[in-house]
Amino acid sequence: MKDLRLAGLNTHTGRSTIEVNGVTIGGKEIILMGGPCAVESSSQMSQSAETVKRAGGKILRGGVFKPRTSPYSFQGLGQEGLSYLVQAAKEQDLLCVTEVIDTPSLDLVADKVDIIQIGARNMQNFELLKLFGKINKPIILKRGLSATIEEWLLAAEYILSAGNSQVILCERGIRTYETSTRNTLDLSAVGVVKELSHLPVIVDPSHAAGRRDLISSLSKAAIAAGADGLLIEMHPNPDVATSDGPQFLVPRTIYSIS
Amino acid sequence: MKDLRLAGLNTHTGRSTIEVNGVTIGGKEIILMGGPCAVESSSQMSQSAETVKRAGGKILRGGVFKPRTSPYSFQGLGQEGLSYLVQAAKEQDLLCVTEVIDTPSLDLVADKVDIIQIGARNMQNFELLKLFGKINKPIILKRGLSATIEEWLLAAEYILSAGNSQVILCERGIRTYETSTRNTLDLSAVGVVKELSHLPVIVDPSHAAGRRDLISSLSKAAIAAGADGLLIEMHPNPDVATSDGPQFLVPRTIYSIS
Amino acid sequence: MKDLRLAGLNTHTGRSTIEVNGVTIGGKEIILMGGPCAVESSSQMSQSAETVKRAGGKILRGGVFKPRTSPYSFQGLGQEGLSYLVQAAKEQDLLCVTEVIDTPSLDLVADKVDIIQIGARNMQNFELLKLFGKINKPIILKRGLSATIEEWLLAAEYILSAGNSQVILCERGIRTYETSTRNTLDLSAVGVVKELSHLPVIVDPSHAAGRRDLISSLSKAAIAAGADGLLIEMHPNPDVATSDGPQFLVPRTIYSIS
Amino acid sequence: MKDLRLAGLNTHTGRSTIEVNGVTIGGKEIILMGGPCAVESSSQMSQSAETVKRAGGKILRGGVFKPRTSPYSFQGLGQEGLSYLVQAAKEQDLLCVTEVIDTPSLDLVADKVDIIQIGARNMQNFELLKLFGKINKPIILKRGLSATIEEWLLAAEYILSAGNSQVILCERGIRTYETSTRNTLDLSAVGVVKELSHLPVIVDPSHAAGRRDLISSLSKAAIAAGADGLLIEMHPNPDVATSDGPQFLVPRTIYSIS
Repeated sequence: MKDLRLAGLNTHTGRSTIEVNGVTIGGKEIILMGGPCAVESSSQMSQSAETVKRAGGKILRGGVFKPRTSPYSFQGLGQEGLSYLVQAAKEQDLLCVTEVIDTPSLDLVADKVDIIQIGARNMQNFELLKLFGKINKPIILKRGLSATIEEWLLAAEYILSAGNSQVILCERGIRTYETSTRNTLDLSAVGVVKELSHLPVIVDPSHAAGRRDLISSLSKAAIAAGADGLLIEMHPNPDVATSDGPQFLVPRTIYSIS
Repeated sequence: MKDLRLAGLNTHTGRSTIEVNGVTIGGKEIILMGGPCAVESSSQMSQSAETVKRAGGKILRGGVFKPRTSPYSFQGLGQEGLSYLVQAAKEQDLLCVTEVIDTPSLDLVADKVDIIQIGARNMQNFELLKLFGKINKPIILKRGLSATIEEWLLAAEYILSAGNSQVILCERGIRTYETSTRNTLDLSAVGVVKELSHLPVIVDPSHAAGRRDLISSLSKAAIAAGADGLLIEMHPNPDVATSDGPQFLVPRTIYSIS
Repeated sequence: MKDLRLAGLNTHTGRSTIEVNGVTIGGKEIILMGGPCAVESSSQMSQSAETVKRAGGKILRGGVFKPRTSPYSFQGLGQEGLSYLVQAAKEQDLLCVTEVIDTPSLDLVADKVDIIQIGARNMQNFELLKLFGKINKPIILKRGLSATIEEWLLAAEYILSAGNSQVILCERGIRTYETSTRNTLDLSAVGVVKELSHLPVIVDPSHAAGRRDLISSLSKAAIAAGADGLLIEMHPNPDVATSDGPQFLVPRTIYSIS
Repeated sequence: MKDLRLAGLNTHTGRSTIEVNGVTIGGKEIILMGGPCAVESSSQMSQSAETVKRAGGKILRGGVFKPRTSPYSFQGLGQEGLSYLVQAAKEQDLLCVTEVIDTPSLDLVADKVDIIQIGARNMQNFELLKLFGKINKPIILKRGLSATIEEWLLAAEYILSAGNSQVILCERGIRTYETSTRNTLDLSAVGVVKELSHLPVIVDPSHAAGRRDLISSLSKAAIAAGADGLLIEMHPNPDVATSDGPQFLVPRTIYSIS
């Protein structure tokens, strides 16, 4: 693809690694990020952070500005939720990430979180992508619900070409006819992206599956497919950590089949 | 759908009609809107306007802020293009419509065009939808590339619930596995929307098909399916008007099969 | 497509019309075929035939060998149902069509019905297609649930190349992510087929929509798109004929938009 | 699903294992099956068998009756090809599997191969499924190109309810809008099937991806997701065995992430 001037593999020496306050994404370790979809309370976040820490996670996530299908659904706690997220991450010595949806929300979070996320619905909100290109923070760019891999990489190119080279791609399922999962996790995308681009790619099995019983097998599959990290829905629920919570933050070689 | 408090059919007496400077959308006449995808020059727009007029059209469209998959593609003429569009429409006594992609572009066009369009990629850009709810202009809301009809109506609900009742829905094809057309025009959507909502719905066969030879048959099919209007790619090309250009602006009864 | 040696438009002088005992498919008239999905009883078929006749239909359809997703679902009345279908068609001076699923069912129906149907699930049952190529009966070839138009035409090519030139294509909806209709009726397919092939094409809005309220608008749309006929689910239910039952068998010019 | 009377997990004690002449599918070992898509010659098959053996495979596959989209494409070597397959498997002490497409091909292969395959296009060829239910051989049932998991399990139910309990499910990619792979491998299906059914499930990454560079990562991912085996396109090409050919036939624990 001739338009992948900056995201393309052939325009770059080796693979990109992204350093965020001591955590390396795209390097030898598989990075686990976890937390609830929406920040709801201070205690929820404290417990979530503890869960993430115990599971070997390095990054706490939590949504405070929620893009919701219906205008009447809960739209997130905003600035108040942001403080819960930041505080909980600090308590457990975790980094934190949250989604940004427009200029005002970007202004609010830019100095407070370590990584900023662009949601699937905004993957082709090009004006927002350009804004992200002007800041100096790592960006997690989720694949759009029906975006081709080419469109996804070109969305990354918007951020890169506007000046920010710290883009982490995140596969989170695509829309298909199959209804037994919320979306269809496209693990081929991991390998395709690695063929085309030097950017790190992580996988979010939780949004894709929409059901908890598949998270463990899809997480292992994502790592085996070559993903650089996982973004997993984690509630402050002890049984998540004990039963579903393998130690994800281990050297990549453990997962290799040699 | 319980969340269709304002867009729902049962919350409204009869069907909505939208009056825009003497043109009624959703009424007895099928309204033709046409013009090029992107405004390129003054003469292109003058000729396009003439073509639209001759085809019986009432509304000239032309994109000046173009959301493009690649950051290196032409992004539109912006303010300069806007003046070409407005001038050309005036010459032929047509209304005009253009797409808006963010707050600055909205500020630029709000006083100059008659109708504002939200593109498919921004259908779930909820912050933009809320902005559109605060202005007093008709909005054409294109269906997202892989949006369900429910998600599309809930996007309309964002605009309505923010205070603007003038929403026109536009079916423009959905993403499927079939590759002989760019997207698959979903004409069932016209009927489904009419069952669920009082809002007018128009059809854009050009973006869906991505090939000119199907526009005539898909336009007729859209009208037969119950669409309130058509949005058609029209270049300033005489043969378009003579061969492909039926008189669309005719009373609805002509198209009825009785 | 180089493999469309017999189905291709450029290998044939003009469009094919298929004559079946006095009814011409692909000619100036739009042909209505109707009847229940499954034959259940003699009286059901008599009343269905009356309904079809009153609606202007020329062909009665009814399934007697039913390909069903579950082995525990009703699999059709077989030979007994066939006699109900044939008898009911005779009473109303209609032609009749039924689906065949294998060699034994073909042997049973070959001499008794006027047209034989291949269902969507068997569109790429190539051994069955070859069998159909050896008989001298018109074949309705339904598009597979996720077949591309190219695959569909190549399935027709199997029948043609085995010796039977009487193939009628039937668009019946494709599988997509949208759930408000059972499948998504692809009316662009009518125009695409007409560009590529000389074969007649009919449309089955009933299977596509899976809901009765859309049949009227989709039927009109199919005709406007250029379909040569309609295959409609019709129960022996008077209100179908009176409210939903326009006179379909009218000259094609009535539907034209000139 | 109430119709999964025999395929359902709750109707069975534990998971099914299928024993085929000393090889157990669904047990502690992950079984590798490999070979060319189409049998072309005796030497091709001898070399393929050697490749499969060297890669740790237990089962040689090769198609001799090929369901092809176009009637003008190579349809397989038939009986001649069958002897090459059987002979090559014998030389390397491998089992063998081939696809059957109708009654005559079933009659030809039934006594000669160890496992019989139903291709994706025939997944809902219910008459063929019933035939398979009457024989005493393990059946590999490929998922249809756009089959839901429910439809796939109900296709298995056809075989089981007709008397054959030896069904092995095979995920091989589903049809989606994404074009960078031939189909989209749905690895969530492995976990979903394991939740619903006791039947073993294998994965065919080759047909799904349609490109060799992804086979290694998708194979690992399939095993990590819980697949009981792999069906991989293997040409008699030394570099396949050396670079792409990990030792698949290893105890399952090696692949576990504990």
